[in-house]
Amino acid sequence: MEATGPSPNETREILKAHPGTWAEVDRLAETLDTTLACARTCAVCADACLAEEAVAELRKCIRTNLDCAAVCQATAEILTRQTAPDWSLLSAQLQACGEACHTCATECERHAKHMEHCRLCMETCRSCASTCQRMREAIKH
Amino acid sequence: MEATGPSPNETREILKAHPGTWAEVDRLAETLDTTLACARTCAVCADACLAEEAVAELRKCIRTNLDCAAVCQATAEILTRQTAPDWSLLSAQLQACGEACHTCATECERHAKHMEHCRLCMETCRSCASTCQRMREAIKH
Amino acid sequence: MEATGPSPNETREILKAHPGTWAEVDRLAETLDTTLACARTCAVCADACLAEEAVAELRKCIRTNLDCAAVCQATAEILTRQTAPDWSLLSAQLQACGEACHTCATECERHAKHMEHCRLCMETCRSCASTCQRMREAIKH
Amino acid sequence: MEATGPSPNETREILKAHPGTWAEVDRLAETLDTTLACARTCAVCADACLAEEAVAELRKCIRTNLDCAAVCQATAEILTRQTAPDWSLLSAQLQACGEACHTCATECERHAKHMEHCRLCMETCRSCASTCQRMREAIKH
Repeated sequence: MEATGPSPNETREILKAHPGTWAEVDRLAETLDTTLACARTCAVCADACLAEEAVAELRKCIRTNLDCAAVCQATAEILTRQTAPDWSLLSAQLQACGEACHTCATECERHAKHMEHCRLCMETCRSCASTCQRMREAIKH
Repeated sequence: MEATGPSPNETREILKAHPGTWAEVDRLAETLDTTLACARTCAVCADACLAEEAVAELRKCIRTNLDCAAVCQATAEILTRQTAPDWSLLSAQLQACGEACHTCATECERHAKHMEHCRLCMETCRSCASTCQRMREAIKH
Repeated sequence: MEATGPSPNETREILKAHPGTWAEVDRLAETLDTTLACARTCAVCADACLAEEAVAELRKCIRTNLDCAAVCQATAEILTRQTAPDWSLLSAQLQACGEACHTCATECERHAKHMEHCRLCMETCRSCASTCQRMREAIKH
Repeated sequence: MEATGPSPNETREILKAHPGTWAEVDRLAETLDTTLACARTCAVCADACLAEEAVAELRKCIRTNLDCAAVCQATAEILTRQTAPDWSLLSAQLQACGEACHTCATECERHAKHMEHCRLCMETCRSCASTCQRMREAIKH
């Protein structure tokens, strides 16, 4: 069986079907997909850490993973809405998301050599932090 | 700018990095990605409906979209965890998810001819309902 | 400082302010508050288990806590909406919620003698399972 | 039937059962309960606005309600965890939460005279914004 999953085209396509779609819909689609992917990766990493023999040393990593997943999820939820946005709120949430991703990447980096899930999560979080930062700059008025 | 977003390979890769990864990790990755994509699509459809001139006739669609997004999200969250699963709970949640997707597809179908977001959402919900059903059958013991 | 928090009256009051409020708004308010309280308690229990010295033996409990929190949260979200409800979906989600609460109560019971958070979580989950069951019966047509 | 719902004592009690409970557990319990109550109230207000005859004029209010609910929910989720907290992330998320509550209170205020749910939501959001601000000051190092 082939895992097909969501395609970035799908995200862009439905965002474009909004009657008042944004000018920068490609950036929006990218940021939405990236935050959703980061939420998923952090949640999987938390569970993988929980299953590790060294779970007692991974408490901070699990907690940080779960926090990052929650913050990315809330950010993604805001990004699904193009109707009557509040730029100041979006910016503050993107700032918190960047902070969460940075914290999580830093913690995962400590285990990245020994645990592939932490290495993957570190990379995803770094990429998400950059994407959030670019989005913040794009909406600065 | 190219919207890159999550790739199905990413999901499979990190699920495989779990120390006790499931035998049917491809199916798990597919179901996880499909429920996440459906949650995203329903949330975007709710917001697009809200922006339509005919919003007053789309109340049920908006509500059903939001319900489906919440149920898909919870289902996805359970699917991120491979540690010590409870098959009976997973099955019940997949059943609720199939129900939510079926309800949402039926409602979106009514508007699919006039609104592209509803057409896309209908298709995504139908596909998610099938995926949940296949997963339920796969975990039946 | 006194922790005041949400009052059940608040929930009932705002649900009643809906232009098409349900006949059984008291039951709705109770079920909504109970699922939200259960989501919160399960999330706190997961984190308390993670901090325990015996964390390696609490993996299943942590996972089950997180699942139950997610399922209760989705159920609560559906219960916040009185507009154009789908009884079949609500019933299926309440069924999954009861299942999640039952699973979580059973797992927490195993640790209830030694860990106060598991004892409290067991009680909250049992109460939530009953409340969901009563709500299911009430909406049966 | 009496709607009983969550009691603030419950929140404090289970937070105190954590093996490494915080010194300021009363403040934590209050902030957690307040963000959860605000998430619930905003979600109910969104649905009540959707059911209003004047729904077309309430689009911004619905969107802002849904954003505020998502941000409060993520903030609450972080507040459920006392294990190995990151103060900088918590502070950034509390900042975003205050912003969301402020935005939502401002929008609801415009309809508060005519719609009781908006008046209640405005008050809850204002109270939540203050609570988040006090928590931010309390964790400043």
